[in-house]
Amino acid sequence: MSEVRRRAGGRAARVALREAPLDVDSRPIRPGMSGGAFTPLSAGEVTEVIDAAYSMLAEFGMGQATPEIIELVTGAGGRMDDQGRLRFPRDLVERIVTEVACKEFILHGLDPDKSVEIGGDRVHFATSGAAVLMLDHETQRFRHSTLSDLYDCSRVADVLDNIHIFIRTVVPRDLEGANTIDINTAYASMAGTTKPIGTSMFLPDSVPDVVAMFDMVAGGEGEFRKRPFCLANNTFVVPPLRFAEDSALCLPVQARLGVPITLLSAGQAGATSPAALAGSLAQALAECLAALTVVNLAQPGAPATMGLWPFVSDLRTGAMSGGSGEEAIISAAAAQVVNAMGLPSSTAAGMADSKIVDAQAGHEKANAVTLAANAGANVIHESAGMLASLLGCSLEALVVDNDMLGSIMRTVRGIEITPETLSLDVIRDVVHGPGHYLGHGQTLGIMQTEYIYPEVGDRLSPDDWVDAGATTVSERAHERVSQILAEHHPDHIDPAVDAAIRDRFDIRLQRG
Amino acid sequence: MSEVRRRAGGRAARVALREAPLDVDSRPIRPGMSGGAFTPLSAGEVTEVIDAAYSMLAEFGMGQATPEIIELVTGAGGRMDDQGRLRFPRDLVERIVTEVACKEFILHGLDPDKSVEIGGDRVHFATSGAAVLMLDHETQRFRHSTLSDLYDCSRVADVLDNIHIFIRTVVPRDLEGANTIDINTAYASMAGTTKPIGTSMFLPDSVPDVVAMFDMVAGGEGEFRKRPFCLANNTFVVPPLRFAEDSALCLPVQARLGVPITLLSAGQAGATSPAALAGSLAQALAECLAALTVVNLAQPGAPATMGLWPFVSDLRTGAMSGGSGEEAIISAAAAQVVNAMGLPSSTAAGMADSKIVDAQAGHEKANAVTLAANAGANVIHESAGMLASLLGCSLEALVVDNDMLGSIMRTVRGIEITPETLSLDVIRDVVHGPGHYLGHGQTLGIMQTEYIYPEVGDRLSPDDWVDAGATTVSERAHERVSQILAEHHPDHIDPAVDAAIRDRFDIRLQRG
Repeated sequence: MSEVRRRAGGRAARVALREAPLDVDSRPIRPGMSGGAFTPLSAGEVTEVIDAAYSMLAEFGMGQATPEIIELVTGAGGRMDDQGRLRFPRDLVERIVTEVACKEFILHGLDPDKSVEIGGDRVHFATSGAAVLMLDHETQRFRHSTLSDLYDCSRVADVLDNIHIFIRTVVPRDLEGANTIDINTAYASMAGTTKPIGTSMFLPDSVPDVVAMFDMVAGGEGEFRKRPFCLANNTFVVPPLRFAEDSALCLPVQARLGVPITLLSAGQAGATSPAALAGSLAQALAECLAALTVVNLAQPGAPATMGLWPFVSDLRTGAMSGGSGEEAIISAAAAQVVNAMGLPSSTAAGMADSKIVDAQAGHEKANAVTLAANAGANVIHESAGMLASLLGCSLEALVVDNDMLGSIMRTVRGIEITPETLSLDVIRDVVHGPGHYLGHGQTLGIMQTEYIYPEVGDRLSPDDWVDAGATTVSERAHERVSQILAEHHPDHIDPAVDAAIRDRFDIRLQRG
Repeated sequence: MSEVRRRAGGRAARVALREAPLDVDSRPIRPGMSGGAFTPLSAGEVTEVIDAAYSMLAEFGMGQATPEIIELVTGAGGRMDDQGRLRFPRDLVERIVTEVACKEFILHGLDPDKSVEIGGDRVHFATSGAAVLMLDHETQRFRHSTLSDLYDCSRVADVLDNIHIFIRTVVPRDLEGANTIDINTAYASMAGTTKPIGTSMFLPDSVPDVVAMFDMVAGGEGEFRKRPFCLANNTFVVPPLRFAEDSALCLPVQARLGVPITLLSAGQAGATSPAALAGSLAQALAECLAALTVVNLAQPGAPATMGLWPFVSDLRTGAMSGGSGEEAIISAAAAQVVNAMGLPSSTAAGMADSKIVDAQAGHEKANAVTLAANAGANVIHESAGMLASLLGCSLEALVVDNDMLGSIMRTVRGIEITPETLSLDVIRDVVHGPGHYLGHGQTLGIMQTEYIYPEVGDRLSPDDWVDAGATTVSERAHERVSQILAEHHPDHIDPAVDAAIRDRFDIRLQRG
């Protein structure tokens, strides 16, 4: 066979390999790969943080507890102190952590193939946010976010492989009324994707409504509880160490109705939590442990994640800095501490300070998400789409960040060390043979199992890149977004069910 | 005092604090902070990689050894096999590693305050590269790189705090002749900065010339050896496992003249090293150990770093992909393995595939540098300025990447856990007092010691950012570069010495 034909055959073989679908287990990256190789704290330091959190709950307690929470906690050994603060004894909280709390749970997708198992050291990437601004797809300028934006985020995320959970990204500012917003936020999130979703609920009264809607989609009353497909982000705390009334009222309701909860503490260092990062971390842990205790007293073993989101301020201005190195390290440390306790971990990473999809956004996001993922955070919220320290969201950012998340998950996978991968036999062949590895069977064999390829990331040579238009990645992402918006119209909600939902609830989303 | 005056006083106090110079030890980040919290390989896996490398050197040996290298190695127990390959027995290499090789050394700056100590788990950020294209500052288009570009890179890096070592970034394509290029590359690198520098030398004959020039700057013959301020990147290998003749000839010369060497192996997975990452890593280690042995047989204890730069290919095209997740993880693992052996480690990270300073460049760079730094790499080459998988360089990228490096070094610093930082007393004050931390003494006290602030990174609110012109970070970096080029004209080389150098050598750089 001539050299030319052999080369052509090699290329054809590579193309054929590349186009053959891979079964899930042989893909280079998958949702839920094991993290944990990044351990910024020593084991002793982790214990000190945990001890500090227990001390806070025992000595300072939580302010502004609701009557139900007071009843639950005092009934289990807690007490109200003379300053009106609810004290949590260490043995109560420790017993909840070790004996009662849910250690892992399945968050289902409406497509069962997209379900994820939260817990252990398994890493998943999620959106999240309550952005009030959208970087408009057409104008690339900020404007108020709408319900339609939320739906577009959901359907764009639906086709991006490395976003595993779609959680509410933007607040629909075109709606009024907390119950209307709660119902419609849940609906628009669910309507755009078959992946697991997440939402927020402002009112305790919204919880049964949202669950009733989810039951209708899941096939009948009680079905959502059996296969829950939606996390509730619950910002139960006004740091430091005070319950937020409405969200705290939601906690037991969500737990009893089987809604998995992100117990979300987002103190801001230097403002609502200590400027010293260690203190900020310990305070967030204390707050989440208080909520975990409440949830498990209301519904033992209720699925929940410990959502330590210790935010960082720019101390010159007091403004939040989601893109800082301080933020990156404290979020990763938060995941390490929670994982060490054996509890499901949520944290936030990817909160660029940059207002646009530029190099600043890129390095701010990657620094934080890389560390959170390699620390083993189970759910990394805010990992795609967010700008302006969570004030803004962008569809183009979702697409660019999806490439980033793939690359980061590849680092989480790490390097397998086996006699086969160490390749002594291959190297012997090459050293005593052709002197290169280009045509070696190993090279062809692993190009789809060990390597991943970006979607909008460019790997052309400089000349070819110029010939192709010399575009930025955000320009290429813009094209990809246009294509998705034009072509991807999810129809996984049965029309009859959809009609029934619209009969029962005030659903505002109009779909083309 | 009125509330208004107290607030103003607080702001004035913050401004005063911010403007007070900090002594080096209380700065939030410093060169040489301790990494090592990222350990992608288990201790057992590290041993397996090291064993595989020793096996390669003993069983396959190195091809194309020079007569001097053959003499050195066979004189110490090695042998030439019947295929003309130089075998390195394990006990020889192990003895060099444990008993002979330099474990740490000082790389001096021409400004002694900028000297760095290479070794242990101390992390430093360096430029590097042999880019052939420059993203022109004025036109923002690629063109051939020049000697003047190299000098501009050096003086821009000179003012960027988070670049600790300036190593040659671009090849002066306006020069011809290897000796002329070697001399002028060293001169232009040195003339732009008082930081430690690095260069490359193509010809063995250039080494004494370059050292003679360095001696003149250092104050006389033999002075450079006493306080070496320049690393020699030496690409001594044509992977797999063959010496590159000219560079290999340079090795003993550099070692004997006291030039610290980066022993640089840059195999490309799937082409010149195995596609399996484990094999690629082990092969690079074997190659660097061969060079380390040669260097230490020529000059026992000669300062050198183990430069495992295992490059990754896009296996669809065979082109290098410096920005991939595979590259990020293998570079970090390389640093981990070398550090575990107790040897000084160099690796490459920050090699974006993107051709411009966009979000792709940002996330590609940050993913890799974050992991290499947290793995404890002693010298992270290519960490600023590079684009197009090392084919291109950009002054704007240097400035943007400097912010990134600061943020990453902040993550390397980690979180100090002490009774004071855990802040129980502060939290008690706040919980029972104002309910927030804004005016607390701790907050004011640590804003300059725990937090860092970007130079061109933007943290404005969306509205303020629009009012300020809605710029990208690369636009702001462009302005900063213009300012540096106009204002920063290093004059640390004594004019009489400079004249003497120009008398003796063919120095082509004209400085305005």
